[in-house]
Amino acid sequence: MNTPIGIFDSGLGGLTVVKAFLEHLPGEQLVYFGDTARVPYGTKSKKTITRFSLENTRFLKTHGVKMVIVACHTASSLALESVRQAFEIPILGVVEPGAKKAVEVTQNGKIGVIGTRSTIASASYEKAIKALNPDTHVTSAACPLFVPLVEEGWTEGETVKQVIHHYLEPLKRSNIDTLILGCTHYPILRDRIQEAVSHKIQLVDPAEETAYKAREVLESLELIHRGKVSQNQVQYFVSDEPELFRPLGERFLGQPIESVECVSEDYFEAVL
Amino acid sequence: MNTPIGIFDSGLGGLTVVKAFLEHLPGEQLVYFGDTARVPYGTKSKKTITRFSLENTRFLKTHGVKMVIVACHTASSLALESVRQAFEIPILGVVEPGAKKAVEVTQNGKIGVIGTRSTIASASYEKAIKALNPDTHVTSAACPLFVPLVEEGWTEGETVKQVIHHYLEPLKRSNIDTLILGCTHYPILRDRIQEAVSHKIQLVDPAEETAYKAREVLESLELIHRGKVSQNQVQYFVSDEPELFRPLGERFLGQPIESVECVSEDYFEAVL
Repeated sequence: MNTPIGIFDSGLGGLTVVKAFLEHLPGEQLVYFGDTARVPYGTKSKKTITRFSLENTRFLKTHGVKMVIVACHTASSLALESVRQAFEIPILGVVEPGAKKAVEVTQNGKIGVIGTRSTIASASYEKAIKALNPDTHVTSAACPLFVPLVEEGWTEGETVKQVIHHYLEPLKRSNIDTLILGCTHYPILRDRIQEAVSHKIQLVDPAEETAYKAREVLESLELIHRGKVSQNQVQYFVSDEPELFRPLGERFLGQPIESVECVSEDYFEAVL
Repeated sequence: MNTPIGIFDSGLGGLTVVKAFLEHLPGEQLVYFGDTARVPYGTKSKKTITRFSLENTRFLKTHGVKMVIVACHTASSLALESVRQAFEIPILGVVEPGAKKAVEVTQNGKIGVIGTRSTIASASYEKAIKALNPDTHVTSAACPLFVPLVEEGWTEGETVKQVIHHYLEPLKRSNIDTLILGCTHYPILRDRIQEAVSHKIQLVDPAEETAYKAREVLESLELIHRGKVSQNQVQYFVSDEPELFRPLGERFLGQPIESVECVSEDYFEAVL
């Protein structure tokens, strides 16, 4: 069915998910919404993240989407159930696919998870992993400074190494062989994180796994589109100034972003 | 007149302004609003910051305030004129008082300003300083990682020193003798900043100067209250979970915060 898939994130991190969808679902149109006026989500409460997630999903629904991907790990961790209850289309988060992948790749049953403060506090990954295999041992660490570092373009150098070391040191002692990058910003720091935890540890980025999961669901519902896509395969929307989004957005996406629209000022009222 | 003064900020940084008001206007009731659901402002656009500032002021107006203090430097830099045009009560920002103080204390006419990306891009301090003395030389530096560091409680140690050094190095070469702390979070890093720029440089925190200015305006309008205040001199409101605000808030305020209320979920609609 040639109606688009909606993807939302607190800001631009979700573009790493868009990238995976373009690769693994090349026949699909996408509508992306980055809530750049209210970013970040990772330090905020369940109630607030749920309200924002419902509003974002309602906005995507106005574009006739057949499925919504909650690309933000914090929103996937705290608001997924509420969004599923409020809408009848399929709603996919990134946590379950990430957990599934980690359980598949671990050899010793010891998995690490890093994410925002709110994601880690929710224990969402731990619950999803234990549901798949109760014998797995999960060690988690919140890394709240990773998002601002990436947003500021600090991805190399001594300071970045120190911050990564500070957060990951406790994980290294727990003998994990698999580490889930539980925030859409973290793949940008992938090489530095890999260096910090040793090259023997497998890093799992849930973006790709989420694209596989979406393809599976669309196929089973006979909603998948395999035909030709229009020239602008992705429509980008943000809630703050588009020009603040584009430069770093292109870095996350790994390709140019032709046009970004700001949602109308009335959006927050209109969709409520 | 025993109606309260309203103070708003993007989050908890404005509590450094509340502290100055409690000291210098001890007879006044205060209503504080921290927009913790949408924090930070310092990376966002003029349009978005203006919309948030108008909403915050409307919320304070529902508490019958006689004056509003825009405690956030970013909002003071980008939205003050719009807020003044929209409301008939006196609206004070922190930029003009901070500029005035810096012009008074500088000996060599070379003033430095540090602030968020949006504050520095607006050149608000430079304009306010030049309006007072066109011969002054102003050097500015955006320090976008200071807010997340402070919010995460990173105020000591090697990493913090490196980040401060990175941002302040260009300022040191400009021979300033005065440095404005142009963000409500920065007084928390005051000692580290002082060490980084040498002890000869005078640091200016606009919070105190803003309290003097408010007293002056209230006196001239015969709106000042010198009587006894009620036990709860400050009413605190936030837009996200109060318990996420209180612990670090007490650090900014330097005293316990007894109670914080979350504004109603309908607030953003109701006040529009």
